[in-house]
Amino acid sequence: MSDQLKRVAIVGSGNWGSTIAKIVGTNIAKFNTYEQEVRMYVYEEIINGRKLTEIINQEHENIKYLPGHKLPQNVVAYSDVVEAVEDADILLFVIPHQFVERVCNTIKSRVKKTAFAVSFSKGFYVSQDKRVELLSTVISQLLELPCYVLMGANIASEVAGGSFCEATIGSRNYEHGQLIKSLIQTNEFRLVVKPDTEVIEVLGALKNIVAVAAGFSDGLGYGDNTKAAVIRLGLKEMVKFCEEFFPGHHPHIFLESCGVADLVTTCYGGRNRKVAAAFVKTGKDIKILEEEMLNGQKLQGPDAAAEVQQWLKQRGQANHYPLFVAVHEICERRLEPTTLIDALRNHPEFW
Amino acid sequence: MSDQLKRVAIVGSGNWGSTIAKIVGTNIAKFNTYEQEVRMYVYEEIINGRKLTEIINQEHENIKYLPGHKLPQNVVAYSDVVEAVEDADILLFVIPHQFVERVCNTIKSRVKKTAFAVSFSKGFYVSQDKRVELLSTVISQLLELPCYVLMGANIASEVAGGSFCEATIGSRNYEHGQLIKSLIQTNEFRLVVKPDTEVIEVLGALKNIVAVAAGFSDGLGYGDNTKAAVIRLGLKEMVKFCEEFFPGHHPHIFLESCGVADLVTTCYGGRNRKVAAAFVKTGKDIKILEEEMLNGQKLQGPDAAAEVQQWLKQRGQANHYPLFVAVHEICERRLEPTTLIDALRNHPEFW
Repeated sequence: MSDQLKRVAIVGSGNWGSTIAKIVGTNIAKFNTYEQEVRMYVYEEIINGRKLTEIINQEHENIKYLPGHKLPQNVVAYSDVVEAVEDADILLFVIPHQFVERVCNTIKSRVKKTAFAVSFSKGFYVSQDKRVELLSTVISQLLELPCYVLMGANIASEVAGGSFCEATIGSRNYEHGQLIKSLIQTNEFRLVVKPDTEVIEVLGALKNIVAVAAGFSDGLGYGDNTKAAVIRLGLKEMVKFCEEFFPGHHPHIFLESCGVADLVTTCYGGRNRKVAAAFVKTGKDIKILEEEMLNGQKLQGPDAAAEVQQWLKQRGQANHYPLFVAVHEICERRLEPTTLIDALRNHPEFW
Repeated sequence: MSDQLKRVAIVGSGNWGSTIAKIVGTNIAKFNTYEQEVRMYVYEEIINGRKLTEIINQEHENIKYLPGHKLPQNVVAYSDVVEAVEDADILLFVIPHQFVERVCNTIKSRVKKTAFAVSFSKGFYVSQDKRVELLSTVISQLLELPCYVLMGANIASEVAGGSFCEATIGSRNYEHGQLIKSLIQTNEFRLVVKPDTEVIEVLGALKNIVAVAAGFSDGLGYGDNTKAAVIRLGLKEMVKFCEEFFPGHHPHIFLESCGVADLVTTCYGGRNRKVAAAFVKTGKDIKILEEEMLNGQKLQGPDAAAEVQQWLKQRGQANHYPLFVAVHEICERRLEPTTLIDALRNHPEFW
């Protein structure tokens, strides 16, 4: 194994992680500057009496999280995260946000000093003392390396299936940005590199709050115009949040895939929207609906709304974000869903 | 009749014109600075043996274009457009764009010198010598008065029915902008005034081209991600068009109701999308589908695509707008619908 060849590791093997593994494994075969083996950390599970890593390595398919899509043979599953990332020059983090800190603590002494990371996770990190931070910041600080992001309007199965899609890479380092693009771009999955890393990441988390509001609007029986107004006023709060707390970005960053495209897809198709509509129609709590509609998987929008509320309160800014605040209060049942529209009627946008 | 009282006239009585008449008539009753009568120019038609003006003036309902919504009694229908606009201080133009020039030529010698106009029409004006212009420019030049615009994500029946909606007023004149806002804003129909009049108007026309592209994507069977990419790349071309030809606007004007909100609603719900999807699925020509699906009403997107193609060619810029150009070529059957995606794959955005 030459020291010259770069090594890529993928931390995570859900549907998005497996999709990225499929793309990266295929792309790497075209380059002679990379070690061909792409290690993928897999949280071990037993499926029909067999280990998931064993199934992936023998059948080249993640039958649990990305069934029906063959992975290239150079993608190798590892159940030991340290082994998976050791010697890697590029670490792709594609794990649910609640596992980021634990994984980073496990691997931090074993990661190459010259490596860099890319985070694909959407959501905020909340520390035990209730500080709210970006996941890329957590990864960067715990591992002492640069961490970039990739965000966009991406449904894993559509990307894996080769539908035409796009995403945004956030990297202030031009060379690293282009390198990530060359690793992940395909004929069907098109990428744009922009330097506004934090904003790109923040938009990915905030859009889920707006999707909950869009779901409330649907659940209340409002039509297309009202929903358009809800989405747009939510977008304006996303923009204000970024301008207030992450100033200095390009004003058109919101027009990238990570911005309007991801927002719109989530507000029309996503599960945050769907569960929020059911919340209004059935009167059941979010937790119950997560059990019933998502097999107990956690919805990201209500969590993000709580985290953003926390963030805004810490900074005395909550009253400038009536939609974000209304979503949280409605999820917590301190306000009726109909009050969402009152919050919008008197929105600072109309002053 | 006091000289001090301002008079408002509405030119047009389709579903949007009648909705605006309903709102303005109701609002004016709260002010003592306006002549209470709001004249509405109605293109005379015979409905079940009765004149439409007569029906509106006796039953206070436009039973043909806005059935089920009572108009306030101070809205008075006139079949003579000169009579309708004479003495008016504020002229609201809510007519299909192909009638704007003719109406302006009819009334131009009779309009008050101190009046101003607001255009609600979406689309470009093409002169006999193939120049492409904005409708507000045509109104302004023919009538020799300032012309502002009102655009947004507005389905007339939802606005008339009192759903929560919003729109954008374009006016560089602060006083006039606020006056228009006070005339038309209600508790449910919220307005934002921005100075970027031309861009606000251009977005209203360009969005229909993108909606045709979104319909092609739907018709080709692509999913949410591809559609999100189509809409976003279309938005980027809208932005580029405005930056190239109407520079100096605020970079966030695209985040107003006239921008993303109108675009998204049209790409998910509108008839341009619907007919374009049918165009791909059935293989029938646009003209045939207009007959079958819209009772012969003309679709705005294919026309706008032709007009924009003309505009771009006159300026040697067509190759920078692959989506706009592809939509026109596909509508004209010079390209297959599938080539839309090829145009996007190699979009300048990804260079």
